[in-house]
Amino acid sequence: MRFARVLVDGAPTFARLEGDRVHPLARPPWLSREEVGLPRPFDAASLLCPVQPSKIICIGRNYAGHARELGNEPPKEPLMFFKPPSSLIGPGQAIVLPPRADSEKIEHEAELGVVLGARGRNVAAADAMKLVFGYTCVGDITARDLQKKDGQWTRAKGFDTFCPTGPWIETDLEPGKSRVTCRVNGVVRQDAPTSDMLFDVATLIACASRVMTLEPGDLLVTGTPEGVGPLVAGDVLAIEIKGVGVLEVAVA
Amino acid sequence: MRFARVLVDGAPTFARLEGDRVHPLARPPWLSREEVGLPRPFDAASLLCPVQPSKIICIGRNYAGHARELGNEPPKEPLMFFKPPSSLIGPGQAIVLPPRADSEKIEHEAELGVVLGARGRNVAAADAMKLVFGYTCVGDITARDLQKKDGQWTRAKGFDTFCPTGPWIETDLEPGKSRVTCRVNGVVRQDAPTSDMLFDVATLIACASRVMTLEPGDLLVTGTPEGVGPLVAGDVLAIEIKGVGVLEVAVA
Repeated sequence: MRFARVLVDGAPTFARLEGDRVHPLARPPWLSREEVGLPRPFDAASLLCPVQPSKIICIGRNYAGHARELGNEPPKEPLMFFKPPSSLIGPGQAIVLPPRADSEKIEHEAELGVVLGARGRNVAAADAMKLVFGYTCVGDITARDLQKKDGQWTRAKGFDTFCPTGPWIETDLEPGKSRVTCRVNGVVRQDAPTSDMLFDVATLIACASRVMTLEPGDLLVTGTPEGVGPLVAGDVLAIEIKGVGVLEVAVA
Repeated sequence: MRFARVLVDGAPTFARLEGDRVHPLARPPWLSREEVGLPRPFDAASLLCPVQPSKIICIGRNYAGHARELGNEPPKEPLMFFKPPSSLIGPGQAIVLPPRADSEKIEHEAELGVVLGARGRNVAAADAMKLVFGYTCVGDITARDLQKKDGQWTRAKGFDTFCPTGPWIETDLEPGKSRVTCRVNGVVRQDAPTSDMLFDVATLIACASRVMTLEPGDLLVTGTPEGVGPLVAGDVLAIEIKGVGVLEVAVA
C-alpha cells in the first residue's frame, strides 16, 4: 500500500493513495490506517513531505564503493548520525544552497529511507523487520567541505532543505532487492542495488535500537552508494528507489 | 517565572509553579501561558522532564578548560552536535548505564540548557535573545570511549536516559551571569561561571539559526566546564544552574 501527505481543501492531510484517488486518514498512517471522509482525485502537485519523525537516524559509509570514493575504509559496525527534522522537504520543494561563505561544495547522496511503524528498543535483528512501516526515497544532501572541516557532520548535513523525502511511503517492498538511482538533470550519477549495503535494514534497526528507543514515524536513512557529486543552482535532482517511486526536487 | 511539567490527576501536564502551588496550563508554556483549571498543591515528586523539543542542539568544547582537559584546542566557531529526544529524562528518573560490552566509561557533563520560545532562522546575535523562553539544567551524559572510537558522537551521547533535564524552566535569568555546578554524591566535580563560555548564548543561537530553523520548544545545550568524570551505578548526580535550581538524578 502507498501512503502520502497531501493538501485536502488546503489542509495537510495523510492519505492512502490508490490509482487516481486519495483516501484521507484520521492520523499518520504509521499510527492508524483509519480512513475518514470521501476519496478525492489525486493531484501529484499536492504531495507534501510524507514523514514526521521524532528523529532521523542516518547511516554513513554503508556501501563500500562510497566509503572508498571519499578515502575511507568500510566501517566494521554501522556509523550513525542525525539530521534534524527541520531539514526535511517534500516533492516540489527546493534544496536551498547555503551562502557560498558557508559552503562551496554541496553534494547529493541518494538513499533508501525506512519509516518505522512501532516503538522498539534492544530489538534483535531477527525481529527488526516487524518494526518497519514502509519505505521512501531520501536525499542526504551534504556540504562536503563543512563535513571535512567540522569533524562532526551536524552542520554539513543539517541545513534546512537538506533532507528531501518522498514522494510517498510504500509498504510493500523487499528492501534488500531494490535499487537506488540518482539522476541530476536526467544524467545518472548513482545507481546500485540495495544488496550492496554493508549492513542490511534489519541489522541497522537492531544496532540503532541498542542505543535509543525507536518511535513510530522515525526515519532511518540507510546510506548512499558511490557516485556522489555536486549540486548547483538550477539542477533537478531525481532520487529513485525501485519499487517505491521517484522523488524530484529542484536546487535553488 | 517558573514552568514545569507535573502529574495532575495522573496525567502529564505543563504548569506554572508559584510557591507551593502549581497552575495547570492548556499547552506547553513556550506556546501559550494560558492557565486552565484550579491551582493544585505542588509535589516535587510529581515533576517530569519539562521540555519536549523537536531537536536538541548541543555545543561541544564551549569552555576552554574542558576542551583542553580532553586534549583539544578551543574551537574557532561553535561545534554543534545533536542528542535525540529519546535520550531525555526528568527529575527522579535514572541514568541507565549501557551494557559494559558497549561502553566502560560513562561521564557527566553539566550544562546550562536554553529553551527556545519562538521560531527563528538567520537570526542576528543582537536579536537572538528574543527567541529565548527560559533556562534549565541539562546533563550531557557521554560514553567517552565510544566518543573517541566512533568519530561521530551520535552513539556516545545518544543513549536513552543520557539527557537528564529539569527540574523546571526558569524564565528570569541572565545567562552570562549564572554558574554551572556538578556534584556526584555531594562532591563538587564541575563548577564554573557561565561567563567562561567561549561563545555566549546569543552567539550560539545566531550560529545554529544560520544552519537550521529553530522551533519553539527546541533545546540548546551550551557546553560543559572542566571537571568531567566517571559515573558508576549507585551514584547520585546533581546539576545546579545558579538562578534556576538543582536537577538530581540517580545512576542505575
